Formats: sequence, C-alpha cells, structure tokens
Amino acid sequence: MNKEVLAVAKGTKPADLVIKNGKIVNVYSGEIYEGGVAVCGDTIAAVGDVEYCIGENTTVVDAQGKYLTPGFLDGHIHPESSSLAIRPFAEAVLSHGTTGIMTDLHEVGVVSGLEGIEAVLKEAEGTDLKIYFIVPSHVPFSPNLETSGGRFDPAIIRKALKRPDAVGLSECVGPYITAEFPDLMESFDDALSMPGKTLQGHLPDMYGGAMSACVAAGVSTDHESFCEKDVFERLRNGCHLMMREGSAARNMTTLLKTVLDNHLDTSMVSIVTDDLHTVDLAERGHLDDALRTALANGADFVTAIQMVTVNCARAFQLEREIGGLAPGRRADINITTGPEDFKVLSTFAGGRQITDNGKLLVHYETPVHEPCILNTMHLLNPITPESFHIKAPAGAKKVKALVMDTLPYIPFTNRRDVELPVVDGVVRCDTDQDVLYIAQVERHGKNGNIGKGFMGGFHIKGGAMASSVGHDNHNIIVMGDSFEDMALAVNRCVELGGGQVIVREGKVAAEVAYPICGLLSDLPLSELAEKKRELNRVAHEMGTPIAIPFMFLSFICLAAIPAYAITDCGFIDVPTQSVIDPILEVVE
Amino acid sequence: MNKEVLAVAKGTKPADLVIKNGKIVNVYSGEIYEGGVAVCGDTIAAVGDVEYCIGENTTVVDAQGKYLTPGFLDGHIHPESSSLAIRPFAEAVLSHGTTGIMTDLHEVGVVSGLEGIEAVLKEAEGTDLKIYFIVPSHVPFSPNLETSGGRFDPAIIRKALKRPDAVGLSECVGPYITAEFPDLMESFDDALSMPGKTLQGHLPDMYGGAMSACVAAGVSTDHESFCEKDVFERLRNGCHLMMREGSAARNMTTLLKTVLDNHLDTSMVSIVTDDLHTVDLAERGHLDDALRTALANGADFVTAIQMVTVNCARAFQLEREIGGLAPGRRADINITTGPEDFKVLSTFAGGRQITDNGKLLVHYETPVHEPCILNTMHLLNPITPESFHIKAPAGAKKVKALVMDTLPYIPFTNRRDVELPVVDGVVRCDTDQDVLYIAQVERHGKNGNIGKGFMGGFHIKGGAMASSVGHDNHNIIVMGDSFEDMALAVNRCVELGGGQVIVREGKVAAEVAYPICGLLSDLPLSELAEKKRELNRVAHEMGTPIAIPFMFLSFICLAAIPAYAITDCGFIDVPTQSVIDPILEVVE
Repeated sequence: MNKEVLAVAKGTKPADLVIKNGKIVNVYSGEIYEGGVAVCGDTIAAVGDVEYCIGENTTVVDAQGKYLTPGFLDGHIHPESSSLAIRPFAEAVLSHGTTGIMTDLHEVGVVSGLEGIEAVLKEAEGTDLKIYFIVPSHVPFSPNLETSGGRFDPAIIRKALKRPDAVGLSECVGPYITAEFPDLMESFDDALSMPGKTLQGHLPDMYGGAMSACVAAGVSTDHESFCEKDVFERLRNGCHLMMREGSAARNMTTLLKTVLDNHLDTSMVSIVTDDLHTVDLAERGHLDDALRTALANGADFVTAIQMVTVNCARAFQLEREIGGLAPGRRADINITTGPEDFKVLSTFAGGRQITDNGKLLVHYETPVHEPCILNTMHLLNPITPESFHIKAPAGAKKVKALVMDTLPYIPFTNRRDVELPVVDGVVRCDTDQDVLYIAQVERHGKNGNIGKGFMGGFHIKGGAMASSVGHDNHNIIVMGDSFEDMALAVNRCVELGGGQVIVREGKVAAEVAYPICGLLSDLPLSELAEKKRELNRVAHEMGTPIAIPFMFLSFICLAAIPAYAITDCGFIDVPTQSVIDPILEVVE
Repeated sequence: MNKEVLAVAKGTKPADLVIKNGKIVNVYSGEIYEGGVAVCGDTIAAVGDVEYCIGENTTVVDAQGKYLTPGFLDGHIHPESSSLAIRPFAEAVLSHGTTGIMTDLHEVGVVSGLEGIEAVLKEAEGTDLKIYFIVPSHVPFSPNLETSGGRFDPAIIRKALKRPDAVGLSECVGPYITAEFPDLMESFDDALSMPGKTLQGHLPDMYGGAMSACVAAGVSTDHESFCEKDVFERLRNGCHLMMREGSAARNMTTLLKTVLDNHLDTSMVSIVTDDLHTVDLAERGHLDDALRTALANGADFVTAIQMVTVNCARAFQLEREIGGLAPGRRADINITTGPEDFKVLSTFAGGRQITDNGKLLVHYETPVHEPCILNTMHLLNPITPESFHIKAPAGAKKVKALVMDTLPYIPFTNRRDVELPVVDGVVRCDTDQDVLYIAQVERHGKNGNIGKGFMGGFHIKGGAMASSVGHDNHNIIVMGDSFEDMALAVNRCVELGGGQVIVREGKVAAEVAYPICGLLSDLPLSELAEKKRELNRVAHEMGTPIAIPFMFLSFICLAAIPAYAITDCGFIDVPTQSVIDPILEVVE
C-alpha cells in the first residue's frame, strides 16, 4: 500500500505534480471532459478536479486546454529493429509519447541468451520507459537449420517466466502449436499455470480449426493480421487483434477499415509496431504516427487512444497498473493536440516530465554494458575470399543454379533458375542476370558454418554488403559480386564488434558499428539515422531499388519466410525445412 | 495443455457435444451471426462453422435458429440471501442461465468462519455451477459492536487468498480504506501481491478524494451505485461499475440510463444481484430477469449480454476462462430467445446440459453436511420472557424512550421519541404507538449477550417474530409485543437448529428451518418459496405493511446502516458507532 498516494488522493498531502486545465481523454468511460491529473511520486493519485491536490511545493503544469491522454503502450515491439541500444531507444520512443512496451528482446536473446536479455532489461531500468518482458517461446526459430548464440529451452523459459516483469510468452508460432511441439507445450503449461501470463501468438494464415486450436491452447493475442478475414478470425475467437503498423509491415489501415466498417467491438483491438527501423522512428515517430494514420482513416479519437492504451494493458491483464488516467496507475501522461492535427506535445513517464512541447528534457547516460552483450563476434576460422566459393561438380564449365529472388516490396523469395559460368571449378555470379553471391557466416563461435547460395532482386554491383543482423540467428549475412569484397566486408564487420558494412571496389564505403550483441548502437537516434541513411544511399548508388536493403537482407536469413533462405547451415528450402544444393545440374 | 480439446479444434477427434444452427452472440467482436459451438469435455473447442467437429458419437443439439450466448456470470452475489443451501441454489440459478458466480459466502463465514465457507465450497463442487471465491475482507463487520461465530483476521484472509478458486477480497468498505484500517491494509497488500486477485469495493457515497483514495488503494470494482453521479464517479476513475438489480436494491434502471444516455463505454459495466431472495428467485429469476429489464430500458442485445458475461469475467481477469463463446473457455452456453421476448431456453454448464427448453435435467443430491456448518445455535443461557425486560430507573412510572422507526421501503431507521409506561419496573411496549420490543440474542456460544431496544415501523400486533438471520452477525433477532411470545419464538428458532419463526398469541403460526449455519435450507427452491410466502402472509395478517418483513428485520441488526441498529451488544447509534441507552429520561 502506497500511503503517500492515498494521502494525496485524500487531500491530506499535496501532490508532487499537478497537470491542470486539460481535456481528459478518459479511456474507461469513453469521454472527453475538462480536468487535470494529480501525481504522487510515480503514481496517479487523482483525476478530474484536482485543484485540491495543489500545495506549496507542487509542480503545476498548465495544459492550456490541450488533451491529456494516458502514455502510449506498444504491445508488441522488438526494439532491436531500431538498432538503438535500449537507452537511446527509450529516449526516442518516450519523445513520441510511448511510456511502456511489451517486448521479448528476442534478437538479444538469439545472440546472448537470457543472460543478455537480463542485462538489457537492467540497462532499461535506468530509463523512464516501462518495459514488460514477454519471454521468447523459442530461440532459435529453426533449431535444426541455423546456429544461434543463445538458446531457450523449457527450463530457461520457466526461469524467465518467474521474473516479476515477465508477462507471458512471445511469438508462439501457429504451426508449432497445431503440431504440438513438446517443448512449446511444456512452456505453455508453465506460463498458463502462472496467473497473469499471456501467450502471444504469431499466427499468420491460421484459419478455422487451426486458429481454434491455437486459441484453445491458450493464445490470447496475435499481431499477424493482413486482411479482413484475419480480423474476424481473431475477434470472433476471442483473440486480441494487434493491428501492426511498423516499418516492415503496415497492416493497420486495412484492418481498421474492417473493424470500423463492421462496427466491431474495439475493446480487444490495439495498435502495435512489431518492427520499427531507425529512419522511420526518426522521421515518422512511433505510435503517435500510427495514431495519425488511424485518425485519418476514420477512427474516433477516444477509440484510437484506447487502442494504444487501455486495450493493450487489458490484453496483458495490466489494466490496474497502466493504460489509463486513474488513481493507482503509473503516472504516464501525454499532453496532445486534438484529432485533426494530432501530435504529442509533452510526455510524463512514471511522474517525470520527459518532454516539454517537443523538447527532450532527459538524457540517459550510456551505461557500462555487461560483458555478455559485448564482443559477440566469434569466428572459428579466418574469413578469406575462398570462404565463399561454391564449387562446381568436377569438370563442369556451366551449371544451372537455383537463385532466390526477393520481391521488391517484401522480403519473400521466389525461385529463378539461371545458367552460371564456372571458373577454376568455382561457380560465378552474374550481375548481368542480377545474380549475386550470398552467404551466412556463423559468428557465435560454435561451428564455423558458412551457408552459401545465389541471390537476385537486390541488383547490387561492384561490391558487397555484410551485416551481423540476420533474423533469426544473427550470424553474419553477406552478399556481393566479389569474393574479395565479401571477405573484406565480413572482416570489417567483425572488427567493428558487429555492424553493417558496405564495401565498394575493395574499400569500405559506409559502415555502422553495433557493438552490443552485434545488433545495437549506443548512438542517439539522430546520429544513427544519419549513418543508416548513408548506408542506404551507398547501396542505392550501387544499384539496388530496395528502399531499406539491409532490412531485406536480414530477413533473407529467416528460415520461416517462403520460399528460400540462407542460414549458416546452408541454402534452405523453407516449405520442406531442409538444406538443398543451389546447383541444380551441370549444363556443360 | 488439454490435448483432447486441441484435437477437437483441429478436427482430428470428434466433439462430445455440438450445438448447431444457432445465432452466436459474440461478446468479443460484438456481432450476432449464424453458427454453432463444439465442446470437448467441459471446454469449448471451436465456435462458428463447427460441422467438421461432428462425429458418430457426438451429441448434436439443434438450436433451431435461436441465440447462443455465453453462460451468465453474477460478479457479486451472496447466495445465502436466497436461504437455499448451495446445491438447491445452484439448481435454481443454473435454471435461469447463470453458470458462474463470484461470492464471498460472507454470511456462512460470519457463523462458521473460513472452515464453514470451505465446507460450502466443497459442497458446490458437486454441482455444475462455477463458483469463484472472493475472500471476505472483514468479519464481523463491526468487531466492537457485535459478536460473530467466525472471525477473519489478516492471517486467515491470507490463507483463504491462496486457494486456487480465490479471486480477490470482497466488500472492501470505503471509509475503512480511507481510514487506512491496519488489518485491511495488510490484507490489501497480500491480495495485490498475488497476480489476478481483485479488490471488490463497497463504496456507497464515496466521492472525489475519498473515491480516488479507494481506487488508488487498489479497489477495482464496486456495486454500491445509486445515481447518475455514482456512475461517472466510478467509470471515470477506472473502477468497474457493477449495476445492482437484486431484491434488496434495484439500482440498474437508473444507472443504465446514465450509461446509455451519455454513450459511456460499457466494457467496465456489469449487472449483479448482490442479494436475491427466495421468492424473487422463484418468481422473477436471476440475471435473465435483470436482462429483460435492461433490454426493456434500451440496452442493445449484445451490450446487455456483455454485461453479464465478458465484462464480468474481465473485472476478475478471468476472461480467458469464462464469459465468452471461444475456444478454451468453459463450455457455459445458453440457448435463448431474442431481445424482444428474452428468455433462457436451455443451459449448458461445463459442457453438461442443465435444462432443455426450461425443463431441469439435473438434480444435485443433498450431501452429508460438514459438522462445522450444522448445529450452530449455541445459547449460553436459557431464554425466558424476563430475558427481554428493559428495566426502568428505580421508581419510574413512565419514561421517554428512543424508538427506531424503519422506513417502509428500505430498512434505514430514524429516531422517534415516545413516552412508554413502566410496569413492575419494566418498560413496556405500546402497539397503539407502534412501539415493539426488539432484541438480539447472541447464539455463537461466546458471551450470552442480549441487546435490547424499541422498534417502530413494523406494526406487528399479537405475537413475535424471531430469526437466526441477522446481518452481519447472525445472532437471533426477535421482535414482538409480548415477552412470552418472544421467548417462545427464540426457543423454537433454536430447536429448529436455526430458522425463522412467527409466534401468534402463544403459538407457533409459521416457521422455516435453516439447519445450515442457521441460514440455509436444503429444501428445493419451490418448497422453500412456499414456506417463505406463508411467513410473509402471517406477518401481513399481524399487521405489517412491509412486503418482506424478515428481510427488513435482518438489516436492523446491521451496525452500518443509519441511523440505529440492534445487535447482541446493545442498541447502536450508527453514526457514532456506540452503544446507547434507549431510555432517554424519566417522565414521571
């Protein structure tokens, strides 16, 4: 019992902070009315007419008739997609009115396991962003087809679930549920035996009996909806609909239209971003940007705000803690303009003022990182140009090879059969046919694997790009038209302690270092965004039509996205979940 | 993980039960559409097009185009108000479509403590009614002003909270919270430290800072709303509004009007009954009756159904277990007519069919009751007519006395000063002035207390009524115009092992036995209702204009209802919470 808060509520002790003269967007009653908020420490003590809470030492903020909303919550986001270390990430999203996130820190877990995640969560405690941890339900994603640094088995998951900040299991994959993978079922039982833990689905294309089975198994939220049918499939089954509006996928407009046109109940609907990249975060913002889109697409103001506050809190049974302006809730408060020109003006998180009319008031010092999240680039063997050779069958001069072509707007790959020359027994790429070498180099110090194949769709010429960000194993993905440039790019990436590198004609042309897990940078958002823009610029100069080529490249390693992938284990046929030979036959 | 349910959902195993050809009232999406429900054991496996779940041995029920709703939930009810033992109570409410209740079994606790409650919960397991236990937050209600059988201290409450069926603390009294009673605060801390436990408020007349303090302390629901102001006060503070529509208080119509007229968000609004008496339950029904009233007062069909299903489940964070037709939820299903002529036709609870077109299909045998809930009438001293004498000051012939007058429509009492004669040193009642003797006799074997006073408003002549039901201590309350009849009534009540007795001119004229805790009968609803109608009839013959005189009498013992009360400790001045002398002065 926080007796201080009670005293402020009762009026026997002055509030620490009173925001007055606002229009309260009440996500519980569904109303907007004039009033203020009184805060004691990090907690709201009273809402409405709170003049009685003002004392001599109370900080009084005049909202000048603007709207007061709860701080925003993102119910499904991987902060690692921003490439920002957790502290600059917190600064960035807080600046846009986001005061809480639910995240699995899955990418950190892939590299550094639970120990790494716990180190990042510890670093986050030095910020005002409230982080709820959703325990990764499986790391790596495809245990037999890739090598990861961290691994999550049921015992580790059980340990993680017992953390007080753990709110459930993340990314529970539909087909794994219907196949009743024993490890996953064991973790489901563990999570469901603990009150308040939620199973977050990853349920694309699950319909009918398959969707029923997932919900019957206990999954209560999902963020993989794309079309009208998906909306009905989730809500009718009592599964919370997380409408995704991120960088990699922007599904909200379609889904929201379905919700609004059909007058569906919105209490189980929220907006999440899933993945939000550095430049998008810098240029567009976070949930504030998604709200602008929702409002422009016809969502009522209170309804839209509910979708990034109380609805999300309820999905995790956290509604008594966060997600609304009411006594006892964390003092997460935004002062905003109205629905016509929606913008977050000022943000308070846990009672602390973060921004004042757009100006950031706080700065989180870079901490001394735990060793487990540093120096994570461990190659077992030196990388040379020869490392990337794909040998042709003896005596062959030309072969037919299977090239995977990425689509230009989404990193799904299709098959293309091409004839490629053989020189000195090595199959060569052919930029005239848009065929590049692609490889993934194991970097967790486990086996020295290098998987190799041929890539189309990127249209890069005269160099190579390498990155230590590669879903869902974060080995080093490298692509180029020159073995030498590829080797240089990988070695530079390792030198940086992880990062992204473009080599052009034998020289490093652009780079960014990700010293934390090979995934994250301590740079502030604006500086990091500048570096990433430069990477994009150089890649575009080298011929790629893809807007964010490193992001696409990172998904080419995901053995779950059809139809093909490259991992350290080899060239993957996704539908059959097997390693195949990219060389189909000898032509001559 | 219930793999059977998954198998049925996936279609690899036939369902045990399929209800088909219905109109699904989907409380999640807010829609009504055609479909069915497939059930495996006690759990829903699939909803919608469930033809694929039908196998050779599946029981198929044709809903014939009627509506399918979730089973109803009463989020705040004291079953003891029905005077039915838990098994006939379960039969009665299941017959009206109620498949789950949240209850504190507070009255049983007052008599027999946690042990008694646990015995009743055990008996309930033999029924299909799902009971969630809300632990009483304080027993007795007024520890210094009454004697109870059971007592709940923080240690007992902690033990009770650890039961897997415990969902929180019940009846957390507003002024006790704002006064920060240490025992209560300790129990709050215990409950709030356990995920999923809810603090249920009892917050009449709490406004502004007082209401803020209660919510800040963690209270998240309340059922004590009476007027428009109460609706706003709760919802705006993020406190779930339980609109009461019971026997003692029928507040829903007023509150619902406020909700609908102001277009308030209804997701935190539910309907409860609190107290529902035998005859009302027999003649009107339970939540089905409240729904008819809600629908007649303009509530949309889906919205009304949400108020007795998913909204209630969410208030207790039980939405993944009950409250909706979705996979994984308990198979609690009603087949109903539509909003114009709303009626529950058939009910399924935990997958078992309870009623078929109004016909009850199940019967719960009377169990062997645990000793702790039987033989609870323990008088320390014999009761004689002299037991009820109120002595006048020595030599007085006439005194001025303070009579408490009940209002005719609600058992609130007002002061009336009357002059009363003294005969043989004993102050006499005066039926010409409508002044009766009233007393409460301690019956828990603790101290033999008898509290005495004078009562007006009942207008009984020529006898006495006695009852072992007296809130909130359940000692024997007795009222009459003759010491002899009062003694006979009390002694007969004790002979019955508890119950309600009317003595007329020296003879027992009507009676009902409550052998369980002195509160409950094993009779089925219809038989018990008949006996209670007879008690009412005789009391009305004896002159009372009060419709349910024993119910009013039971509230006259409640030291919390203004302005006066009688307990075993004496005549109580409620505002000052003290025992006072009903004799004001000697007149002659």
